Amino acid sequence: MDRTAGIVVIGNEILSGKVVDTNSPFLTRELRSLGVTVRRILTVPDELDEIAVAVAEFQERYDLVFTSGGVGPTHDDVTMEGVARGLNRKVIRHPAIEGRIREYFKEKANEARLKMAEVPEGAELIVDGRLGFPTIKCENIYILPGIPEILEQKFQAIRDRFAASPYFLRVIYTKDGEGTIAEHLNTTLVAFPELLLGSYPKIGDPEYAVKLTLESKDEAYVEQAMAHLLALLSRDSVVRTE
Amino acid sequence: MDRTAGIVVIGNEILSGKVVDTNSPFLTRELRSLGVTVRRILTVPDELDEIAVAVAEFQERYDLVFTSGGVGPTHDDVTMEGVARGLNRKVIRHPAIEGRIREYFKEKANEARLKMAEVPEGAELIVDGRLGFPTIKCENIYILPGIPEILEQKFQAIRDRFAASPYFLRVIYTKDGEGTIAEHLNTTLVAFPELLLGSYPKIGDPEYAVKLTLESKDEAYVEQAMAHLLALLSRDSVVRTE
Repeated sequence: MDRTAGIVVIGNEILSGKVVDTNSPFLTRELRSLGVTVRRILTVPDELDEIAVAVAEFQERYDLVFTSGGVGPTHDDVTMEGVARGLNRKVIRHPAIEGRIREYFKEKANEARLKMAEVPEGAELIVDGRLGFPTIKCENIYILPGIPEILEQKFQAIRDRFAASPYFLRVIYTKDGEGTIAEHLNTTLVAFPELLLGSYPKIGDPEYAVKLTLESKDEAYVEQAMAHLLALLSRDSVVRTE
Repeated sequence: MDRTAGIVVIGNEILSGKVVDTNSPFLTRELRSLGVTVRRILTVPDELDEIAVAVAEFQERYDLVFTSGGVGPTHDDVTMEGVARGLNRKVIRHPAIEGRIREYFKEKANEARLKMAEVPEGAELIVDGRLGFPTIKCENIYILPGIPEILEQKFQAIRDRFAASPYFLRVIYTKDGEGTIAEHLNTTLVAFPELLLGSYPKIGDPEYAVKLTLESKDEAYVEQAMAHLLALLSRDSVVRTE
Protein backbone atom coordinates (compact mmCIF):
# COMPACT_ATOMS: atom_id res chain seq x y z
CA MET A 1 0.00 0.00 0.00
CA ASP A 2 1.21 3.46 -0.90
CA ARG A 3 0.52 6.38 1.37
CA THR A 4 1.43 10.04 1.00
CA ALA A 5 1.88 12.59 3.74
CA GLY A 6 2.30 16.32 4.19
CA ILE A 7 3.77 18.03 7.24
CA VAL A 8 2.73 21.52 8.38
CA VAL A 9 5.10 23.10 10.89
CA ILE A 10 3.54 26.01 12.74
CA GLY A 11 5.79 28.50 14.47
CA ASN A 12 7.11 32.03 14.29
CA GLU A 13 10.14 30.84 16.27
CA ILE A 14 11.23 28.76 13.30
CA LEU A 15 10.53 31.42 10.65
CA SER A 16 12.45 33.97 12.72
CA GLY A 17 15.48 31.73 13.08
CA LYS A 18 15.26 31.38 16.87
CA VAL A 19 14.66 27.64 16.86
CA VAL A 20 15.70 24.99 14.36
CA ASP A 21 12.81 22.68 13.51
CA THR A 22 13.71 19.12 14.49
CA ASN A 23 10.13 17.86 14.35
CA SER A 24 9.80 17.65 10.58
CA PRO A 25 13.13 15.77 10.20
CA PHE A 26 11.97 13.36 12.92
CA LEU A 27 8.56 12.81 11.32
CA THR A 28 10.12 12.49 7.87
CA ARG A 29 12.55 9.79 8.96
CA GLU A 30 9.87 7.89 10.86
CA LEU A 31 7.35 8.07 8.02
CA ARG A 32 9.91 6.95 5.46
CA SER A 33 10.85 3.96 7.59
CA LEU A 34 7.14 3.11 7.65
CA GLY A 35 6.98 3.29 3.83
CA VAL A 36 5.01 6.56 3.79
CA THR A 37 5.98 9.09 1.09
CA VAL A 38 6.27 12.64 2.43
CA ARG A 39 5.44 15.02 -0.41
CA ARG A 40 5.73 18.44 1.18
CA ILE A 41 6.88 20.11 4.37
CA LEU A 42 5.56 23.61 4.92
CA THR A 43 6.43 26.00 7.74
CA VAL A 44 3.90 28.77 8.37
CA PRO A 45 3.55 31.54 10.98
CA ASP A 46 1.25 31.39 14.04
CA GLU A 47 -1.62 32.89 12.03
CA LEU A 48 -5.10 31.49 11.58
CA ASP A 49 -5.41 32.03 7.85
CA GLU A 50 -1.97 30.68 7.07
CA ILE A 51 -2.70 27.51 9.05
CA ALA A 52 -6.21 27.14 7.61
CA VAL A 53 -5.05 27.43 3.99
CA ALA A 54 -2.16 25.03 4.48
CA VAL A 55 -4.20 22.42 6.29
CA ALA A 56 -7.10 22.60 3.82
CA GLU A 57 -4.77 22.08 0.86
CA PHE A 58 -2.71 19.29 2.45
CA GLN A 59 -5.79 17.49 3.73
CA GLU A 60 -7.09 17.19 0.16
CA ARG A 61 -3.78 16.30 -1.45
CA TYR A 62 -2.27 13.76 0.94
CA ASP A 63 -3.44 10.64 2.71
CA LEU A 64 -1.99 11.81 6.01
CA VAL A 65 -1.31 15.27 7.40
CA PHE A 66 0.73 16.06 10.49
CA THR A 67 0.86 19.44 12.16
CA SER A 68 3.52 20.41 14.66
CA GLY A 69 3.24 23.28 17.13
CA GLY A 70 0.78 25.90 18.33
CA VAL A 71 -1.27 23.81 20.76
CA GLY A 72 -0.40 25.34 24.14
CA PRO A 73 -2.31 27.70 26.42
CA THR A 74 -1.01 31.07 25.17
CA HIS A 75 -2.14 33.68 22.62
CA ASP A 76 0.19 32.35 19.91
CA ASP A 77 -1.27 28.83 20.10
CA VAL A 78 -3.83 29.00 17.30
CA THR A 79 -3.43 25.64 15.58
CA MET A 80 -6.77 24.18 16.75
CA GLU A 81 -8.63 27.23 15.51
CA GLY A 82 -6.60 27.25 12.28
CA VAL A 83 -7.34 23.57 11.58
CA ALA A 84 -11.02 24.12 12.39
CA ARG A 85 -11.16 27.05 9.98
CA GLY A 86 -9.41 25.02 7.28
CA LEU A 87 -12.06 22.31 7.63
CA ASN A 88 -14.99 24.73 8.04
CA ARG A 89 -15.68 23.53 11.53
CA LYS A 90 -16.29 25.28 14.81
CA VAL A 91 -13.93 25.09 17.77
CA ILE A 92 -15.51 23.41 20.77
CA ARG A 93 -14.31 22.77 24.30
CA HIS A 94 -14.09 18.99 24.53
CA PRO A 95 -15.77 17.73 27.73
CA ALA A 96 -13.38 14.80 28.23
CA ILE A 97 -10.28 17.00 27.99
CA GLU A 98 -11.89 19.73 30.07
CA GLY A 99 -12.66 17.17 32.78
CA ARG A 100 -9.10 15.95 32.78
CA ILE A 101 -7.72 19.51 33.06
CA ARG A 102 -10.10 20.42 35.90
CA GLU A 103 -9.21 17.22 37.71
CA TYR A 104 -5.48 17.81 37.35
CA PHE A 105 -5.30 21.55 38.03
CA LYS A 106 -8.22 21.77 40.49
CA GLU A 107 -8.77 25.46 41.43
CA LYS A 108 -5.85 26.44 39.15
CA ALA A 109 -7.83 25.40 36.04
CA ASN A 110 -7.90 28.94 34.62
CA GLU A 111 -8.99 30.08 31.15
CA ALA A 112 -5.50 29.61 29.70
CA ARG A 113 -5.32 25.99 30.83
CA LEU A 114 -8.88 25.28 29.72
CA LYS A 115 -7.94 26.62 26.27
CA MET A 116 -6.08 23.33 25.90
CA ALA A 117 -9.45 21.54 25.86
CA GLU A 118 -10.41 23.31 22.64
CA VAL A 119 -10.51 21.16 19.51
CA PRO A 120 -12.19 21.32 16.09
CA GLU A 121 -15.77 20.04 16.33
CA GLY A 122 -15.96 16.32 15.56
CA ALA A 123 -12.29 15.71 16.37
CA GLU A 124 -11.30 12.26 17.53
CA LEU A 125 -9.26 11.79 20.69
CA ILE A 126 -6.59 9.11 20.54
CA VAL A 127 -5.98 8.10 24.13
CA ASP A 128 -2.83 6.31 25.16
CA GLY A 129 -2.47 5.24 28.76
CA ARG A 130 1.25 6.07 28.81
CA LEU A 131 0.68 9.71 27.84
CA GLY A 132 -1.07 12.34 29.91
CA PHE A 133 -2.92 14.01 27.10
CA PRO A 134 -4.76 12.55 24.10
CA THR A 135 -3.61 13.16 20.54
CA ILE A 136 -6.18 15.05 18.49
CA LYS A 137 -7.13 13.71 15.06
CA CYS A 138 -9.45 15.54 12.72
CA GLU A 139 -10.26 13.95 9.34
CA ASN A 140 -6.82 12.75 8.19
CA ILE A 141 -4.97 15.41 10.21
CA TYR A 142 -2.93 14.48 13.28
CA ILE A 143 -2.33 17.51 15.48
CA LEU A 144 0.97 17.23 17.32
CA PRO A 145 2.65 19.61 19.78
CA GLY A 146 5.78 21.65 19.03
CA ILE A 147 7.90 20.50 21.95
CA PRO A 148 10.10 17.81 20.38
CA GLU A 149 10.13 15.40 23.35
CA ILE A 150 6.32 15.33 23.48
CA LEU A 151 5.84 15.21 19.71
CA GLU A 152 8.16 12.22 19.53
CA GLN A 153 6.40 10.39 22.37
CA LYS A 154 3.02 11.03 20.82
CA PHE A 155 4.10 9.91 17.38
CA GLN A 156 5.67 6.72 18.73
CA ALA A 157 2.38 5.91 20.47
CA ILE A 158 0.44 6.04 17.17
CA ARG A 159 3.07 5.21 14.54
CA ASP A 160 1.91 1.65 13.84
CA ARG A 161 -1.33 2.86 12.31
CA PHE A 162 0.59 4.55 9.45
CA ALA A 163 2.45 1.50 8.13
CA ALA A 164 2.60 1.29 4.33
CA SER A 165 4.60 -1.00 2.05
CA PRO A 166 8.30 -0.39 2.68
CA TYR A 167 10.93 1.24 0.50
CA PHE A 168 14.01 -0.76 -0.44
CA LEU A 169 17.20 1.30 -0.53
CA ARG A 170 20.63 0.59 -2.00
CA VAL A 171 23.53 3.03 -1.96
CA ILE A 172 26.64 3.46 -4.12
CA TYR A 173 29.52 5.79 -3.21
CA THR A 174 31.65 6.93 -6.14
CA LYS A 175 34.97 8.70 -6.48
CA ASP A 176 33.94 10.18 -9.84
CA GLY A 177 31.98 13.41 -9.71
CA GLU A 178 28.47 14.02 -11.01
CA GLY A 179 29.70 15.46 -14.32
CA THR A 180 31.42 12.16 -15.09
CA ILE A 181 28.70 9.73 -14.01
CA ALA A 182 25.58 11.66 -15.09
CA GLU A 183 25.27 9.79 -18.40
CA HIS A 184 25.30 6.42 -16.59
CA LEU A 185 22.52 7.63 -14.31
CA ASN A 186 20.49 8.70 -17.33
CA THR A 187 21.03 5.37 -19.08
CA THR A 188 19.96 3.52 -15.95
CA LEU A 189 16.78 5.60 -15.74
CA VAL A 190 15.93 4.77 -19.35
CA ALA A 191 16.12 1.07 -18.46
CA PHE A 192 14.47 1.52 -15.03
CA PRO A 193 12.12 4.48 -15.39
CA GLU A 194 10.38 3.82 -12.06
CA LEU A 195 13.61 3.87 -10.07
CA LEU A 196 13.97 6.58 -7.44
CA LEU A 197 17.55 7.61 -8.11
CA GLY A 198 19.25 10.30 -6.05
CA SER A 199 22.68 11.79 -6.67
CA TYR A 200 24.29 13.71 -3.81
CA PRO A 201 27.72 15.28 -4.20
CA LYS A 202 29.84 15.75 -1.10
CA ILE A 203 32.47 18.43 -0.90
CA GLY A 204 35.83 17.80 0.73
CA ASP A 205 35.23 14.17 1.67
CA PRO A 206 38.41 12.15 1.17
CA GLU A 207 36.44 8.91 0.71
CA TYR A 208 33.91 9.71 -2.00
CA ALA A 209 32.59 12.45 -4.29
CA VAL A 210 28.99 11.33 -4.88
CA LYS A 211 26.49 9.25 -2.93
CA LEU A 212 23.93 7.56 -5.17
CA THR A 213 20.69 6.27 -3.67
CA LEU A 214 18.53 3.74 -5.51
CA GLU A 215 15.05 3.10 -4.18
CA SER A 216 11.84 1.34 -5.01
CA LYS A 217 9.01 -0.41 -3.25
CA ASP A 218 9.85 -3.41 -5.48
CA GLU A 219 12.95 -5.08 -4.04
CA ALA A 220 13.82 -7.06 -7.18
CA TYR A 221 13.53 -3.90 -9.30
CA VAL A 222 16.00 -1.96 -7.17
CA GLU A 223 18.44 -4.90 -7.18
CA GLN A 224 18.28 -5.13 -10.97
CA ALA A 225 18.78 -1.39 -11.33
CA MET A 226 21.70 -1.56 -8.89
CA ALA A 227 23.39 -4.28 -10.98
CA HIS A 228 22.73 -2.29 -14.16
CA LEU A 229 24.27 0.91 -12.79
CA LEU A 230 27.25 -0.86 -11.18
CA ALA A 231 28.07 -2.44 -14.56
CA LEU A 232 28.19 1.04 -16.13
CA LEU A 233 30.30 2.75 -13.49
CA SER A 234 34.05 2.37 -13.70
CA ARG A 235 35.32 -0.22 -11.23
CA ASP A 236 37.88 2.24 -9.82
CA SER A 237 35.19 4.78 -9.10
CA VAL A 238 32.98 2.68 -6.83
CA VAL A 239 34.28 3.08 -3.29
CA ARG A 240 31.63 0.98 -1.59
CA THR A 241 27.99 -0.01 -1.65
CA GLU A 242 25.30 -0.45 0.99
CA MET B 1 11.87 49.25 5.13
CA ASP B 2 10.00 46.00 5.54
CA ARG B 3 10.75 43.05 3.35
CA THR B 4 9.20 39.60 3.24
CA ALA B 5 10.76 36.41 1.99
CA GLY B 6 9.83 32.83 1.15
CA ILE B 7 12.21 29.89 0.96
CA VAL B 8 11.68 26.92 -1.35
CA VAL B 9 13.80 23.90 -0.51
CA ILE B 10 14.01 21.41 -3.37
CA GLY B 11 15.09 17.87 -2.64
CA ASN B 12 13.84 14.31 -2.40
CA GLU B 13 16.72 13.62 -0.02
CA ILE B 14 15.08 15.86 2.57
CA LEU B 15 11.53 14.56 2.07
CA SER B 16 12.79 10.99 2.35
CA GLY B 17 14.63 11.69 5.59
CA LYS B 18 18.12 11.00 4.23
CA VAL B 19 19.43 14.51 4.76
CA VAL B 20 18.43 17.14 7.31
CA ASP B 21 17.95 20.53 5.66
CA THR B 22 20.40 23.01 7.16
CA ASN B 23 19.99 25.54 4.36
CA SER B 24 16.63 26.95 5.38
CA PRO B 25 17.71 27.41 9.02
CA PHE B 26 20.83 29.20 7.77
CA LEU B 27 18.91 31.46 5.40
CA THR B 28 16.25 32.13 8.03
CA ARG B 29 18.79 33.24 10.64
CA GLU B 30 20.66 35.40 8.15
CA LEU B 31 17.51 37.02 6.78
CA ARG B 32 16.17 37.75 10.26
CA SER B 33 19.44 39.41 11.23
CA LEU B 34 19.04 41.57 8.12
CA GLY B 35 15.51 42.56 9.20
CA VAL B 36 13.81 40.45 6.51
CA THR B 37 10.60 38.64 7.56
CA VAL B 38 10.51 35.02 6.36
CA ARG B 39 6.85 34.09 5.89
CA ARG B 40 7.03 30.51 4.64
CA ILE B 41 9.48 27.69 4.13
CA LEU B 42 8.35 24.98 1.75
CA THR B 43 10.14 21.74 0.90
CA VAL B 44 9.10 20.11 -2.38
CA PRO B 45 10.31 17.06 -4.36
CA ASP B 46 12.63 17.22 -7.40
CA GLU B 47 9.65 17.59 -9.73
CA LEU B 48 9.04 20.27 -12.31
CA ASP B 49 5.43 21.00 -11.50
CA GLU B 50 5.99 21.08 -7.76
CA ILE B 51 8.82 23.57 -8.16
CA ALA B 52 6.93 25.65 -10.74
CA VAL B 53 3.81 26.00 -8.59
CA ALA B 54 5.79 26.84 -5.46
CA VAL B 55 7.99 29.41 -7.14
CA ALA B 56 5.09 31.07 -8.98
CA GLU B 57 3.12 31.49 -5.75
CA PHE B 58 6.05 32.67 -3.64
CA GLN B 59 7.25 35.07 -6.30
CA GLU B 60 3.88 36.87 -6.20
CA ARG B 61 3.48 36.84 -2.43
CA TYR B 62 6.91 37.78 -1.13
CA ASP B 63 9.48 40.46 -1.88
CA LEU B 64 12.28 37.93 -2.02
CA VAL B 65 12.34 34.24 -2.87
CA PHE B 66 15.24 31.87 -2.29
CA THR B 67 15.46 28.38 -3.70
CA SER B 68 17.90 25.78 -2.43
CA GLY B 69 18.96 22.67 -4.34
CA GLY B 70 18.50 20.99 -7.69
CA VAL B 71 21.06 22.91 -9.75
CA GLY B 72 23.70 20.27 -10.53
CA PRO B 73 24.42 18.26 -13.68
CA THR B 74 22.27 15.17 -13.05
CA HIS B 75 18.75 14.04 -13.97
CA ASP B 76 17.30 15.09 -10.59
CA ASP B 77 18.52 18.69 -10.96
CA VAL B 78 15.41 20.32 -12.37
CA THR B 79 15.24 23.61 -10.48
CA MET B 80 16.15 25.85 -13.44
CA GLU B 81 13.47 24.25 -15.57
CA GLY B 82 10.99 24.39 -12.68
CA VAL B 83 11.62 28.09 -12.07
CA ALA B 84 11.37 28.79 -15.80
CA ARG B 85 8.04 26.98 -15.95
CA GLY B 86 6.76 28.85 -12.91
CA LEU B 87 7.57 32.15 -14.62
CA ASN B 88 6.37 31.04 -18.08
CA ARG B 89 9.84 31.35 -19.52
CA LYS B 90 11.96 29.11 -21.67
CA VAL B 91 15.20 27.53 -20.49
CA ILE B 92 18.22 28.74 -22.43
CA ARG B 93 21.88 27.82 -22.33
CA HIS B 94 23.59 30.98 -21.13
CA PRO B 95 26.61 31.84 -23.35
CA ALA B 96 28.69 33.35 -20.52
CA ILE B 97 28.29 30.27 -18.30
CA GLU B 98 28.77 27.90 -21.22
CA GLY B 99 32.02 29.69 -22.10
CA ARG B 100 33.25 29.35 -18.53
CA ILE B 101 32.42 25.62 -18.41
CA ARG B 102 34.12 24.93 -21.76
CA GLU B 103 37.18 26.88 -20.64
CA TYR B 104 37.41 25.01 -17.34
CA PHE B 105 36.61 21.46 -18.49
CA LYS B 106 38.13 21.68 -21.99
CA GLU B 107 37.39 18.41 -23.86
CA LYS B 108 35.61 17.07 -20.76
CA ALA B 109 32.82 19.63 -21.20
CA ASN B 110 30.15 16.98 -21.79
CA GLU B 111 26.35 17.39 -21.95
CA ALA B 112 25.96 16.89 -18.19
CA ARG B 113 28.41 19.66 -17.37
CA LEU B 114 26.95 21.98 -19.99
CA LYS B 115 23.54 21.43 -18.37
CA MET B 116 24.84 23.70 -15.64
CA ALA B 117 24.81 26.58 -18.14
CA GLU B 118 21.01 26.33 -18.43
CA VAL B 119 19.01 29.15 -16.86
CA PRO B 120 15.52 30.63 -17.28
CA GLU B 121 15.48 33.07 -20.19
CA GLY B 122 16.19 36.62 -19.06
CA ALA B 123 17.91 35.52 -15.84
CA GLU B 124 20.49 37.83 -14.34
CA LEU B 125 23.95 36.54 -13.43
CA ILE B 126 25.40 37.90 -10.21
CA VAL B 127 29.15 37.53 -10.56
CA ASP B 128 31.43 37.59 -7.56
CA GLY B 129 35.17 37.37 -8.12
CA ARG B 130 35.67 35.18 -5.05
CA LEU B 131 33.28 32.49 -6.30
CA GLY B 132 33.76 30.27 -9.32
CA PHE B 133 30.19 30.31 -10.51
CA PRO B 134 27.68 33.17 -10.76
CA THR B 135 24.48 33.21 -8.71
CA ILE B 136 21.36 33.13 -10.87
CA LYS B 137 18.62 35.65 -10.21
CA CYS B 138 15.30 35.59 -12.03
CA GLU B 139 12.73 38.28 -11.17
CA ASN B 140 12.88 38.34 -7.35
CA ILE B 141 14.05 34.72 -7.13
CA TYR B 142 17.58 33.87 -6.07
CA ILE B 143 18.52 30.34 -7.12
CA LEU B 144 21.00 28.80 -4.70
CA PRO B 145 22.63 25.36 -4.68
CA GLY B 146 21.82 22.59 -2.22
CA ILE B 147 25.35 21.93 -0.95
CA PRO B 148 25.43 23.87 2.33
CA GLU B 149 29.02 25.13 2.05
CA ILE B 150 28.37 26.63 -1.39
CA LEU B 151 24.93 27.99 -0.53
CA GLU B 152 26.41 29.78 2.46
CA GLN B 153 29.30 31.25 0.46
CA LYS B 154 26.95 32.43 -2.24
CA PHE B 155 24.52 33.99 0.21
CA GLN B 156 27.30 35.80 2.07
CA ALA B 157 28.48 37.28 -1.22
CA ILE B 158 25.06 38.85 -1.90
CA ARG B 159 23.57 39.33 1.57
CA ASP B 160 24.07 43.10 1.79
CA ARG B 161 21.53 43.70 -0.95
CA PHE B 162 18.73 42.31 1.24
CA ALA B 163 19.11 44.65 4.23
CA ALA B 164 15.79 45.86 5.68
CA SER B 165 15.05 47.74 8.88
CA PRO B 166 16.16 45.60 11.83
CA TYR B 167 14.13 43.78 14.46
CA PHE B 168 14.71 44.62 18.12
CA LEU B 169 14.49 41.61 20.43
CA ARG B 170 14.17 41.34 24.19
CA VAL B 171 13.88 38.06 26.08
CA ILE B 172 12.44 37.09 29.46
CA TYR B 173 12.95 33.69 31.09
CA THR B 174 10.32 32.70 33.65
CA LYS B 175 10.04 29.96 36.24
CA ASP B 176 6.23 30.02 36.00
CA GLY B 177 4.70 27.91 33.26
CA GLU B 178 2.55 29.08 30.38
CA GLY B 179 -0.71 28.30 32.15
CA THR B 180 0.23 30.73 34.92
CA ILE B 181 1.56 33.62 32.82
CA ALA B 182 -0.80 33.45 29.82
CA GLU B 183 -3.12 36.16 31.17
CA HIS B 184 -0.19 38.58 31.56
CA LEU B 185 0.81 37.94 27.97
CA ASN B 186 -2.75 38.64 26.84
CA THR B 187 -2.93 41.86 28.86
CA THR B 188 0.38 43.00 27.39
CA LEU B 189 -0.91 42.35 23.86
CA VAL B 190 -4.02 44.43 24.55
CA ALA B 191 -1.75 47.35 25.48
CA PHE B 192 0.80 46.60 22.73
CA PRO B 193 -1.15 45.02 19.89
CA GLU B 194 1.73 45.33 17.40
CA LEU B 195 4.18 43.47 19.63
CA LEU B 196 5.58 40.20 18.30
CA LEU B 197 5.33 38.10 21.44
CA GLY B 198 6.52 34.51 21.51
CA SER B 199 6.11 32.05 24.37
CA TYR B 200 8.27 28.92 24.32
CA PRO B 201 8.02 26.32 27.08
CA LYS B 202 11.09 24.21 27.82
CA ILE B 203 10.78 20.77 29.36
CA GLY B 204 13.17 19.58 32.02
CA ASP B 205 15.31 22.74 32.19
CA PRO B 206 16.30 23.43 35.79
CA GLU B 207 16.72 27.14 35.11
CA TYR B 208 13.45 28.19 33.50
CA ALA B 209 10.07 26.95 32.30
CA VAL B 210 9.23 29.50 29.58
CA LYS B 211 11.25 31.74 27.28
CA LEU B 212 9.35 34.84 26.21
CA THR B 213 10.50 36.80 23.17
CA LEU B 214 9.36 40.38 22.57
CA GLU B 215 10.08 41.90 19.19
CA SER B 216 9.33 44.92 17.08
CA LYS B 217 10.99 47.04 14.44
CA ASP B 218 10.31 49.99 16.81
CA GLU B 219 12.90 49.86 19.58
CA ALA B 220 11.02 52.15 21.99
CA TYR B 221 7.85 50.09 21.53
CA VAL B 222 9.53 46.82 22.48
CA GLU B 223 11.17 48.45 25.52
CA GLN B 224 7.81 49.81 26.72
CA ALA B 225 6.15 46.44 26.21
CA MET B 226 9.03 44.78 28.06
CA ALA B 227 8.55 47.10 31.05
CA HIS B 228 4.80 46.52 30.94
CA LEU B 229 5.12 42.73 30.96
CA LEU B 230 7.88 42.67 33.61
CA ALA B 231 5.61 44.70 35.92
CA LEU B 232 2.89 42.06 35.54
CA LEU B 233 5.04 38.97 36.09
CA SER B 234 5.77 37.92 39.63
CA ARG B 235 9.26 38.99 40.68
CA ASP B 236 10.13 35.46 41.82
CA SER B 237 9.24 34.06 38.44
CA VAL B 238 11.64 36.12 36.30
CA VAL B 239 14.93 34.23 36.15
CA ARG B 240 16.72 36.64 33.83
CA THR B 241 16.27 38.91 30.85
CA GLU B 242 18.24 39.58 27.68
